[in-house]
Amino acid sequence: MKIGIIGAGQLGRMLALAGYPLGLRFVFLDQSSDAPGGQVGRIIPGAFDDAAKLAELADEVDVVTFDVENVPVAAIEPVAAKKPFLPPVQALGASQDRLHEKTLFRQLKIPTPEFMAVDSIEDLRAAVENIGLPGVLKTRRLGYDGRGQFYLKKASDIETAWQTLGSVPLIYEGFVDFSREVSIIGVRSTRGETLFYPLSANTHSQGILRYSIAPYRNASLQKQAETYMRRLLKHLDYAGVLTIEFFVRGGKLIANEMAPRVHNSGHWTIEGAQTSQFENHVRAILGLPLGSTRPNGHSAMMNFIGSIPELGNILRVSGVHFHSYGKEPRPNRKLGHCTINAPSPTARDRALQQLLRLKM
Amino acid sequence: MKIGIIGAGQLGRMLALAGYPLGLRFVFLDQSSDAPGGQVGRIIPGAFDDAAKLAELADEVDVVTFDVENVPVAAIEPVAAKKPFLPPVQALGASQDRLHEKTLFRQLKIPTPEFMAVDSIEDLRAAVENIGLPGVLKTRRLGYDGRGQFYLKKASDIETAWQTLGSVPLIYEGFVDFSREVSIIGVRSTRGETLFYPLSANTHSQGILRYSIAPYRNASLQKQAETYMRRLLKHLDYAGVLTIEFFVRGGKLIANEMAPRVHNSGHWTIEGAQTSQFENHVRAILGLPLGSTRPNGHSAMMNFIGSIPELGNILRVSGVHFHSYGKEPRPNRKLGHCTINAPSPTARDRALQQLLRLKM
Repeated sequence: MKIGIIGAGQLGRMLALAGYPLGLRFVFLDQSSDAPGGQVGRIIPGAFDDAAKLAELADEVDVVTFDVENVPVAAIEPVAAKKPFLPPVQALGASQDRLHEKTLFRQLKIPTPEFMAVDSIEDLRAAVENIGLPGVLKTRRLGYDGRGQFYLKKASDIETAWQTLGSVPLIYEGFVDFSREVSIIGVRSTRGETLFYPLSANTHSQGILRYSIAPYRNASLQKQAETYMRRLLKHLDYAGVLTIEFFVRGGKLIANEMAPRVHNSGHWTIEGAQTSQFENHVRAILGLPLGSTRPNGHSAMMNFIGSIPELGNILRVSGVHFHSYGKEPRPNRKLGHCTINAPSPTARDRALQQLLRLKM
Repeated sequence: MKIGIIGAGQLGRMLALAGYPLGLRFVFLDQSSDAPGGQVGRIIPGAFDDAAKLAELADEVDVVTFDVENVPVAAIEPVAAKKPFLPPVQALGASQDRLHEKTLFRQLKIPTPEFMAVDSIEDLRAAVENIGLPGVLKTRRLGYDGRGQFYLKKASDIETAWQTLGSVPLIYEGFVDFSREVSIIGVRSTRGETLFYPLSANTHSQGILRYSIAPYRNASLQKQAETYMRRLLKHLDYAGVLTIEFFVRGGKLIANEMAPRVHNSGHWTIEGAQTSQFENHVRAILGLPLGSTRPNGHSAMMNFIGSIPELGNILRVSGVHFHSYGKEPRPNRKLGHCTINAPSPTARDRALQQLLRLKM
């Protein structure tokens, strides 16, 4: 069986590395021929909306998946008509637009911050009036890692926010004064088999995930998260891995966003769970039995952003595993991550502190 | 850093898959361009003793290693003069000849079966006289998976044994009436850091390893095995993974053979230990800090020989991980293996029984 992956970033690379042991073959579509996936597989060079290249990819493989959300749905439809395209196009579509995404959450009774569409400065004034301050003005599309967001603290911020972002469709969201950010990763196969990983607790800085701790054990939050995700998986007739990021406020979850793919906050599963999110994504889209999501001990995942410490210094930390994405260093670029896997939370936290102190 | 691997079999393939996350690149030398490694990396096509191809490989990489023992030492010497060649040539040489290997064991006071060199039928008669029956006549070189061996039960077997194998240098070994076969995998880095994995208990059939159970816990045997391996590692000024296979008789270890490489009986370490034998081999030859060899729960490894059951039926077994080598099926060919990783020996043994019952 051969899998086509649109996008050859680190997620695609790790999908291929997880799938090779199953005897699978991979081919990527990516604009950059030295993207991370190109070092472990073949890339068809081309843009994500290049119809001819997408058709070439689809012709060559048994199933098509993606490692980026920003694949235009219109370009995908002919692919999906040719070969199984999973996760399904409707999941990709819902996740590409914050307004659609939050509308879907609301429709499925998944708590989410208050929100309103903003297409003019009048809309923004009305949204601030209705929802209140503080709040966040966000681009509906193409935002990631904190880009395309403006935090509004007072009414006089409205003008600046509009000037900064107002050229594209926007959404205004009430600010959630959260005590913690968590995410859940779930997987559903084409046969409907569904499993969940334990929650991970995520720490961001400047909008970029810095590190995650997993399993983050809280039976009530785990139950809420699984309930909400089940609704999404069923509604979208989903196959593959799905991620939802939540704010925690007063013991309740508030959905921030979803990603119809393997997720940075799930990288700990490579060593920290019986079956990684990458292997389970591949199993799910091929209709194979899913692997156990049971955690092995206590894990933490830390991103290397912009630069990577000397390899020897990373590997010297007890219980650490390193994952390079094979990228050239560049500010704010995710270059790799490491996972700590330890027999106790104390040992894990000690190792994480050691890593956080490493000179980049 | 780029590693050259002589041989692109399953061991080379799994070395590369373990090394990619560390940001390493790999290139193989192999006669067959669709060998298992070729599906996950580039192969320089050529014979193991092709001086020009070996030089091409050496020129391109930072360090050279191998995934087969049968690389002629004479062909390697120019490579080793050019680039670090690890494990060292003297380890490769010692392991290629059963007589040298057992002589080395004896020199280092590592118990081994009684043995004598056999170059004529008179030698064989004298060896049987001295060592007794039953015994095993073996080719000194190029034997593996039970090939090149003749079991002698009675004196009248001498003629047939000689006729069957007598065209090449031989060794006669006293038969060891063992209660169990175990192996130890150790790793020593270029900086001298040394670690051992827990013993695995191995079950062979027709000379081919069928399955292994690990960790096989027996403090006395573990201590003996580590003591013997330390002597070898030091004597050979070793870097990389080394394996010794032992017979167990009356609570004592008797060394059967060594392999200067990652080993089939250590495949369980991919999921069953904090760091796999493959990753530690790569770390060791690059002088990186070694990773923990601590086991995760209870593991078993089972080979798929000649054929592979339907993938869905394998993956349905609880706690199982599958590793395809990407080979065409052929009788007695190792096509893949699976690892069971379970929280208890009982759960592991139950899963192993399920796997053994699968229709091939």
